[in-house]
Amino acid sequence: MEAAKGIASLGYKVILVEKRERLGGTPDASGYAALTPDMRNADEAIAEMAGAITNNPNVTLMFNTMVMDSSGSEGDFKVKVLQDGKESIIEAASVVVCTGFTHFDPGRETQKYGYYEHDDVITLVDAEKMLKAGNFVRPSNGEKPKQVCFIQCVGSRDRQIGNEYCSKVCCGISSKQAIEIRQHVPDCKVFIFYIDMRMYGYWENEIYWPAQEKYKVNYVKGIATEIVKKGDRLLVKGEDTTMRRPMEVLMDIVILAVGMEPSEGTKKVADMFGVKKNKYGFIETIGGALNTVSTSVPGVFAAGAATGPADLEDCVSSAGAAAMKAIASLRKSAVPA
Amino acid sequence: MEAAKGIASLGYKVILVEKRERLGGTPDASGYAALTPDMRNADEAIAEMAGAITNNPNVTLMFNTMVMDSSGSEGDFKVKVLQDGKESIIEAASVVVCTGFTHFDPGRETQKYGYYEHDDVITLVDAEKMLKAGNFVRPSNGEKPKQVCFIQCVGSRDRQIGNEYCSKVCCGISSKQAIEIRQHVPDCKVFIFYIDMRMYGYWENEIYWPAQEKYKVNYVKGIATEIVKKGDRLLVKGEDTTMRRPMEVLMDIVILAVGMEPSEGTKKVADMFGVKKNKYGFIETIGGALNTVSTSVPGVFAAGAATGPADLEDCVSSAGAAAMKAIASLRKSAVPA
Repeated sequence: MEAAKGIASLGYKVILVEKRERLGGTPDASGYAALTPDMRNADEAIAEMAGAITNNPNVTLMFNTMVMDSSGSEGDFKVKVLQDGKESIIEAASVVVCTGFTHFDPGRETQKYGYYEHDDVITLVDAEKMLKAGNFVRPSNGEKPKQVCFIQCVGSRDRQIGNEYCSKVCCGISSKQAIEIRQHVPDCKVFIFYIDMRMYGYWENEIYWPAQEKYKVNYVKGIATEIVKKGDRLLVKGEDTTMRRPMEVLMDIVILAVGMEPSEGTKKVADMFGVKKNKYGFIETIGGALNTVSTSVPGVFAAGAATGPADLEDCVSSAGAAAMKAIASLRKSAVPA
Repeated sequence: MEAAKGIASLGYKVILVEKRERLGGTPDASGYAALTPDMRNADEAIAEMAGAITNNPNVTLMFNTMVMDSSGSEGDFKVKVLQDGKESIIEAASVVVCTGFTHFDPGRETQKYGYYEHDDVITLVDAEKMLKAGNFVRPSNGEKPKQVCFIQCVGSRDRQIGNEYCSKVCCGISSKQAIEIRQHVPDCKVFIFYIDMRMYGYWENEIYWPAQEKYKVNYVKGIATEIVKKGDRLLVKGEDTTMRRPMEVLMDIVILAVGMEPSEGTKKVADMFGVKKNKYGFIETIGGALNTVSTSVPGVFAAGAATGPADLEDCVSSAGAAAMKAIASLRKSAVPA
């Protein structure tokens, strides 16, 4: 949405191809309640961004549309799309890929946390939906929890599953949700088991300190290794690395802070355009730290979490940069006849 | 440089006002050796960026030039500048502020680390200069060090001095330098004393794991509270929070991982344009997480570390986004007569 708005604001035509029936991507599809770090209402923020490209004379929105194939090159791409069972060709001078991420499936490969066994083991996404509905309860019995914990780095910083990277946002989102749980259920104790608390930049004072001090969230440097049922509660086993002792704590809800993986769309579209992916399947940008949006194929740019873990600021900044570069590419390739 | 290149690539004229006699900003002025995380030669990277806007028909470079004052508004700014003792007025539709940061002065307010007392207590900037010169030695006697440590979060995450924020890049830069020290002085032991190791995104596998595993850098979760002279070496006192014991270790060089503060230029230029600053003196962007470059004054945008701690990717992305928005602003305000 930000890239399309940017291109339109430069006076150029843009076609936004969306596989869903509406705008909003993962924040909409996964039912985000409030954005991190400013806790702005997600629906409101999405509506504002969508509004800027709806009924915009420079923007054509194509919903329920899949990208099927691509040919051509910088200045002259021919992109085959499928909409309502009908194929058509979009001609475009340049392409911006904004296919985002998918949340790590905590049942994949390792199942030590029992996500698919225990009703009260949930993910950040599940928690966000309950917070959005204003009804944060134990899925197993509908009761308000007395004790809740977050387990960080599920699917991130994990070599066994091949995701060595840090997903950047989970520490912030967990802390934001911890604050919200304390607001919704004031007598519920909230713990966050972390390896490193990665509150970079302003998140330190925007989220971390309020969570610690105002909302009395308990941060424990510790590693959870197993979750088992004990009576109708959950026993989290692990090691408290600060107190240097084995840890066994009873919880009513355990929230797994699942990280980011490339979406199916990211991998498929990258392959269609012949764009190089990194070993995780995210789109690889060229030029090291000094070029965040150019891909291995001239005229094809990528923005947001299509290139790897990204927070909202990363996404809007890279989308703006990609809009600029897409138009610069178009202008460069538009050699007068 | 990235913002100017972006504006020029969109076919618009841009004037780059630089107070120094040449391009490159802090990386050039502070003598950076290699960029983080990809360890690309900084001079080479700066030369490439400078090359793109040198002899570019759309770019006018003004060196040794100070911004003195500004009047007008979006679409019609009149910016008074001083060059070679001569004042002139630049007319511009929009303005991008890229005035960056300054390194925290470890002698300011608290002097517990003895930066100005002990020759062998240095900063990341001092270390970078020695690494660039290929001569990493003890400043006190010119000898190669046998044991070196980094102390993280100097001037960051520190309420006593009023900098609650995390400076984002110091963990990465320290780890990069730790690798370089191990390359330059293979028999030197290198320790990093940290609170949280903030290696977000790909830095985890790009810097952190190589530092740990290939280069055997010792990461110690600990807090250094005091540095005193012992014989001709430095005694670092503190607490090892992982081992839960008081810590007293002898070092030949102590490197303070100084954080970011707003540059004088950022504060002055913000005031000249009437742009709102946050409580730290960085430029405040509006729109929360969804707008990284717009300021409180329409037509004035900010990019890079002028708005707060930023890594290279943040800087180039926000510069690209600012270029796009500066031109969108110009187009919007350029109402046909």
